[in-house]
Amino acid sequence: MDTALRFTVLLLTLSFGAGLQLNYIDDYEEEPKEEDVSADSKYGSLWPLPQKIQMSEISFKLTSSSFKIVDAKESSAGPSCSLLKDAYRRYYEYMFGSSKRQQLNKRRRTGPSELTELQVLITSPDSDCDGYPSVTSDESYELSVDQPYAVLRAPKVWGALRGLETFSQLVFEDDYGAKSVNATQISDFPRFAHRGILLDTSRHYLPIKVILANLETMAMNKINVFHWHIVDDQSFPYLSRTFPQLSQQGAYHPYTHVYTPADVKMVIEFARLRGIRVIPEFDTPGHTQSWGKGQKDLLTPCYSGATPSGTFGPVNPILNTTYDFMSQFFKEISTVFPDAYVHLGGDEVDFNCWKSNPDIQKFMAQQGFGQDFSKLESFYIQRLLNIVTSTKKGYMIWQEVFDNGVKLHPDTVVHVWIGGGSNDEMGRVTAAGYTTILSAPWYLDYISYAQDWQKYYKVEPLNFNGTDEQKKLVVGGEACLWGEYVDATNLTPRLWPRASAVAERLWSAKDVTDINDAFNRLSVHRCRMVERGIPAEPLFSSFCPREYKEFTS
Amino acid sequence: MDTALRFTVLLLTLSFGAGLQLNYIDDYEEEPKEEDVSADSKYGSLWPLPQKIQMSEISFKLTSSSFKIVDAKESSAGPSCSLLKDAYRRYYEYMFGSSKRQQLNKRRRTGPSELTELQVLITSPDSDCDGYPSVTSDESYELSVDQPYAVLRAPKVWGALRGLETFSQLVFEDDYGAKSVNATQISDFPRFAHRGILLDTSRHYLPIKVILANLETMAMNKINVFHWHIVDDQSFPYLSRTFPQLSQQGAYHPYTHVYTPADVKMVIEFARLRGIRVIPEFDTPGHTQSWGKGQKDLLTPCYSGATPSGTFGPVNPILNTTYDFMSQFFKEISTVFPDAYVHLGGDEVDFNCWKSNPDIQKFMAQQGFGQDFSKLESFYIQRLLNIVTSTKKGYMIWQEVFDNGVKLHPDTVVHVWIGGGSNDEMGRVTAAGYTTILSAPWYLDYISYAQDWQKYYKVEPLNFNGTDEQKKLVVGGEACLWGEYVDATNLTPRLWPRASAVAERLWSAKDVTDINDAFNRLSVHRCRMVERGIPAEPLFSSFCPREYKEFTS
Repeated sequence: MDTALRFTVLLLTLSFGAGLQLNYIDDYEEEPKEEDVSADSKYGSLWPLPQKIQMSEISFKLTSSSFKIVDAKESSAGPSCSLLKDAYRRYYEYMFGSSKRQQLNKRRRTGPSELTELQVLITSPDSDCDGYPSVTSDESYELSVDQPYAVLRAPKVWGALRGLETFSQLVFEDDYGAKSVNATQISDFPRFAHRGILLDTSRHYLPIKVILANLETMAMNKINVFHWHIVDDQSFPYLSRTFPQLSQQGAYHPYTHVYTPADVKMVIEFARLRGIRVIPEFDTPGHTQSWGKGQKDLLTPCYSGATPSGTFGPVNPILNTTYDFMSQFFKEISTVFPDAYVHLGGDEVDFNCWKSNPDIQKFMAQQGFGQDFSKLESFYIQRLLNIVTSTKKGYMIWQEVFDNGVKLHPDTVVHVWIGGGSNDEMGRVTAAGYTTILSAPWYLDYISYAQDWQKYYKVEPLNFNGTDEQKKLVVGGEACLWGEYVDATNLTPRLWPRASAVAERLWSAKDVTDINDAFNRLSVHRCRMVERGIPAEPLFSSFCPREYKEFTS
Repeated sequence: MDTALRFTVLLLTLSFGAGLQLNYIDDYEEEPKEEDVSADSKYGSLWPLPQKIQMSEISFKLTSSSFKIVDAKESSAGPSCSLLKDAYRRYYEYMFGSSKRQQLNKRRRTGPSELTELQVLITSPDSDCDGYPSVTSDESYELSVDQPYAVLRAPKVWGALRGLETFSQLVFEDDYGAKSVNATQISDFPRFAHRGILLDTSRHYLPIKVILANLETMAMNKINVFHWHIVDDQSFPYLSRTFPQLSQQGAYHPYTHVYTPADVKMVIEFARLRGIRVIPEFDTPGHTQSWGKGQKDLLTPCYSGATPSGTFGPVNPILNTTYDFMSQFFKEISTVFPDAYVHLGGDEVDFNCWKSNPDIQKFMAQQGFGQDFSKLESFYIQRLLNIVTSTKKGYMIWQEVFDNGVKLHPDTVVHVWIGGGSNDEMGRVTAAGYTTILSAPWYLDYISYAQDWQKYYKVEPLNFNGTDEQKKLVVGGEACLWGEYVDATNLTPRLWPRASAVAERLWSAKDVTDINDAFNRLSVHRCRMVERGIPAEPLFSSFCPREYKEFTS
């Protein structure tokens, strides 16, 4: 078949939704060619790409027996900073393999082209070592790889964590298996302060090990927010101390499919040690079917004609008991989760049940809402926001809450999820003066054939009509992996390296857009994740020097 | 938002290729509702569904300490049949867990409603215990679960293997964790003799462990053919004893990314013990870039004007050395792979390089082929088929070889891959009297959002215009998982349970088409695969009593 005919076959076959052998596709997709797979980027395997890099041809060797990561003498983070000690161990093991750990041999003479130390210097008087990361945390760092020492300089521990990851990405294995690093100067900081991943533990329960593995991978990609969509219609795995019946009745299983207070604490600390915020989402008044199982009268009884149908709708907004419950519940949440923000959801409220209920109708009439149920929704949300504000937390909400004209605090973060990469909603939200984060183009639960990471990569978050002031209100974005079709069996390879594309877009400079260079760096970055035990899926035909091995038959 | 508006939002949002939250989708997709997820099928978790089932309400208990699987006294497969012994152990462990293995306690008194034995009776004088499965192997069996013994009766060991899987699927855990089985009569046999899965080890190398795990899973789904697309353009991992330089030069790595003779032997024996044929594919004359690296002059030198361009095209069909090589190579293949068939490929030959080459043009003129390069392709294939025939093997070929009018042996199997579920090609191939297998609607490398298993499930392989005689020539089908986007990190969850849909279509009766019943059975079957250590992905929001745990962080 000649090329024209082949292309026709491609179109015909695709239009019938049928399969065809991939080599047809390969010819016409916008994909780097096979030859490019092993091509090198001049930036090696750095991901996400730092803001400023100077790399020299001079290289130094590193040996597991001599190389050390140490606190610089002048560092404000001393020997007691376990966050850094933990990170030193982690990156030492990533660079040399945990099996190769051995006693440091101080008597061994080191060679002339050997790098023996990475000194970590925290420059600000308060290192933040024992604190939690926040949206204003300083993640900048400067890395100088040169003799006699490499030096990593950062105002806060958060920047040091990012710089350690970068240093580990500079280390490569030469043809003889020796670890080497090129003389390099890097000055780096994130373009956006909020770089998140949403995981959904309601549609499918995710074992703690899976959550931790993905936090680990987030750190490898300089992601700094874990948006924990912890409960929803399908199940309520959060074990509340105040209302234990919520998970007792609402989880898929009351013991095996819940997150205990100890589990939650572990996730938060594991994340903190990697500079990752944990923002929990308790979405109301919709998406709450599972809440109703353990909390009587919380949900609206739906009616079929004049009688209750036995099914329930959104949270019942007309009862005082609802607000008493929410007050107690969010008081607990405000102490369990240290982050300054809670995500309150507020999306996709179905009005049909409210409409069917005579008590609701009566209340609507009393309030003068007419038949505008979005006013009832706003009534509920307004009171909920006041409750949460009284717990000293800020809040994030899905865009509908803003769209419905609910009165919001100036520091509210509006989460945009409807529409594509460039959409007017970003303009409207920022024109109203609100901070915003973007997820609309980054719904990673949607999958399609071939390299969809490129689509995520090509998004420019500030590509909407607005002033410079408005654009400053965009604090970042989140890749969302809703849970209908993922659980412990497939979540990790589906998320990585697709989410890595979002990670670079949110960290690196605006002009870092070369898709071929990205392909080359990301291919190596993906194999690095695999080597670190993460089953990150391939971009295209290729191989990793060490293939994924954790699969057990 | 009301429903109509929501639907509009859905369409608009989808048409911009953007993400949206899933609950919108859930309302309009043809999907079983959340409520159905835990609904029970009257057929329990049987997958694929047997041909005839009678199930009673009476149930018996099984205990790991008393229950045994044994050869029936009259069985033609005696104690020396290690294939069955191996299977007894495997299914005992699946039913009771390997951790619970313990000494059989002969003195313990068994209860009145306890089942203590499954007797396996091979009725044919030749059990086939030491043979290899083939397309004519008898896989039928009768299973009677009743007191005092359950009896599994099968003409050959192949049917016994299928029946053991079925028996293990009948065993369930009651609310107290006790294993139980209902009194049941099953009479079963496959609708199609050839039920295959294609895995591609060229685009990505698959470690042996991954191949074995998937063979194990094929057995759980009564799949009986592993179509091993072992080499292709991208890499040549097959280590040939006769031409070791092929993998030495053509594999991604000469030691870590090859299949040694011992590896291949292990795969074949592992498959045989599960009643699975291994059909290797060595695709020529196209798809052979990797062959050229280790075999000088095998590929056609492409020309740029009057000079060789340095690149190479398909196998060079005009040199005698080509046919000498193929003779030796396929002689080796015929001894290494015991199956009666070899897949010879023959798809997607690109004529541009042949056209550019002056020696080829001269040969074309000599032969009187004019400018019809498909005649040259046929010339090559014809000689190759003669070579393979001389090794006493039958062959399978992709449909283009048939389309191009190459003279084929009457027992050739034509593999249909272009088009959708019902296509004219099946009619043409069978009208010409050839045996055929269908893959066109089952290209599982294509992925899409939501429950695409339903699309695979709804295919009716005989849905083409043709006589009854023609339809008898359809011996089965194969689900193809081409390797561009899968490797050890993601292959298994992407294949299962999507391939299970194809497995039931090819095994069960034609009228087994109830999609809701299939959803319910498949949901439990998927959790059973997970419990057996296979990361089979979820169908939809749900949970498994025991979630996948093998993931290491």
